[in-house]
Amino acid sequence: MTPKILPQKEDNRPIGVFDSGIGGLIALTALAKALPQEDLVYLGDTARVPYGDRSPEIVKNYARECVQFLLDHSVKLIVVACNTVSAIALSEIEKISPVPVIGVIKPAVSAVSAVLLTPGYKKIGIIGTRVTVQSRSYEHEIYKIHGQAGLLIYAQACPLFVPLIEEGWHEDPFIYPVAEKYLRPLKEEKIDALILGCTHYPLLRKVIEEIMPGVVLIDPAEEATKQTVQIIQQYASQNAYKERQIECYVTDLAPTFVRMVNQFLGVSPEAIRHVSIG
Amino acid sequence: MTPKILPQKEDNRPIGVFDSGIGGLIALTALAKALPQEDLVYLGDTARVPYGDRSPEIVKNYARECVQFLLDHSVKLIVVACNTVSAIALSEIEKISPVPVIGVIKPAVSAVSAVLLTPGYKKIGIIGTRVTVQSRSYEHEIYKIHGQAGLLIYAQACPLFVPLIEEGWHEDPFIYPVAEKYLRPLKEEKIDALILGCTHYPLLRKVIEEIMPGVVLIDPAEEATKQTVQIIQQYASQNAYKERQIECYVTDLAPTFVRMVNQFLGVSPEAIRHVSIG
Repeated sequence: MTPKILPQKEDNRPIGVFDSGIGGLIALTALAKALPQEDLVYLGDTARVPYGDRSPEIVKNYARECVQFLLDHSVKLIVVACNTVSAIALSEIEKISPVPVIGVIKPAVSAVSAVLLTPGYKKIGIIGTRVTVQSRSYEHEIYKIHGQAGLLIYAQACPLFVPLIEEGWHEDPFIYPVAEKYLRPLKEEKIDALILGCTHYPLLRKVIEEIMPGVVLIDPAEEATKQTVQIIQQYASQNAYKERQIECYVTDLAPTFVRMVNQFLGVSPEAIRHVSIG
Repeated sequence: MTPKILPQKEDNRPIGVFDSGIGGLIALTALAKALPQEDLVYLGDTARVPYGDRSPEIVKNYARECVQFLLDHSVKLIVVACNTVSAIALSEIEKISPVPVIGVIKPAVSAVSAVLLTPGYKKIGIIGTRVTVQSRSYEHEIYKIHGQAGLLIYAQACPLFVPLIEEGWHEDPFIYPVAEKYLRPLKEEKIDALILGCTHYPLLRKVIEEIMPGVVLIDPAEEATKQTVQIIQQYASQNAYKERQIECYVTDLAPTFVRMVNQFLGVSPEAIRHVSIG
């Protein structure tokens, strides 16, 4: 691992955020709100999205290229908004990054701790892409922090959630049979908490709450945002000198992308620049 | 356009086939059966699939790289099994290819002609990816060949069909509400024929036949295969000297891909090699 250069006091460098696509813009928006002084640089690898069904080797290559792009923009901290990348490529990224890297797995697992504080046997569910689920990264991290005693974990890949959301059908009645089919095994196990292990899934929060009432839903990107804010405050490294800037880059400016950026995120497509990497 | 070197008599060079993913293996299998002496080289760009929601510029770049890979394997003919590439990048490919290029659009439109031979006003439907539908390539080719008189064309993008098929849900009852939602406008127009404008869609043939009985379904890859056979026969350019070989390459050997190759195509995953392009 490259020794990390921690953020400095009053550090004017931007925070870098990257995702395989545009789902990470939700985390970017949250960060922008929580840290109103900070410069932010976002990269979405829309020319090669989705990562969630690819082999781990390809995802690691793509992730390294995205991180290098952010490093070339002199970031002081990198937030990996993508669950698939966080699940299988975080140690690769840490190897090449001289600045701290925040993935979504550890922050999400910290949030699981709150659920485990209440007494009794606990069951935790995880949903995500095929690659995320097969990596078992969430399980490993939960067991590492909490041990295996009094705890059972159930993971379910939901490959159709992202295309359904990107088709704009996540509020259509049609989403229910799909969500019920994927969530049924977790519901039957009576899980206590569910990690929404993909950037898009928080857009299904209402549907999931209806299907699984009473289950604590954990949004990894939200938890990663909280942790980023903590680090910036801990080192008092807020950008103190100038008006803040937010730069958004994507590797392909496809029409679908432009529509989604508008529809789901309220980000103006004009604010987004096309760039080639890889 | 690069002047074309036509296949020679008893030409031992292989035929090249490429697709954005593995759907083109259906066309490859049909070609292998129809031309039992021919060497075949297949390339599936699985590291960057799907193409159907990307910008035309990115699809053109990717297509050029795939074609160069086949040209480096000394092919005598290139079959573009991908509808998205055929719809927007065929002229780009023809520019760089010294050998003939067969896309799926023209062969499919030739098959439409049979429908138009019967008397009366005709309505033709097209389904495909967003990029294919937005390109209007099928419409342009149909109007070019048949004129606009006595003819109406309706096109519908069906972005969820591919992920549903790749999830293995294409024979699930669940597919019907999705297919009905997409096909309703075409059904209401009482179309006579429907072009299945994406390599995966023939796997939905039964479902579409149930929803739209009596509509002539046209499979572009099947028509492209017929045209390839005709060209090989026309120039008597069959490989006459040796045992045939089929080489399959993909840019990412993801687990999902291995499962699909087995499940849908009966191709042994061991027969497929990983290669890097781009």
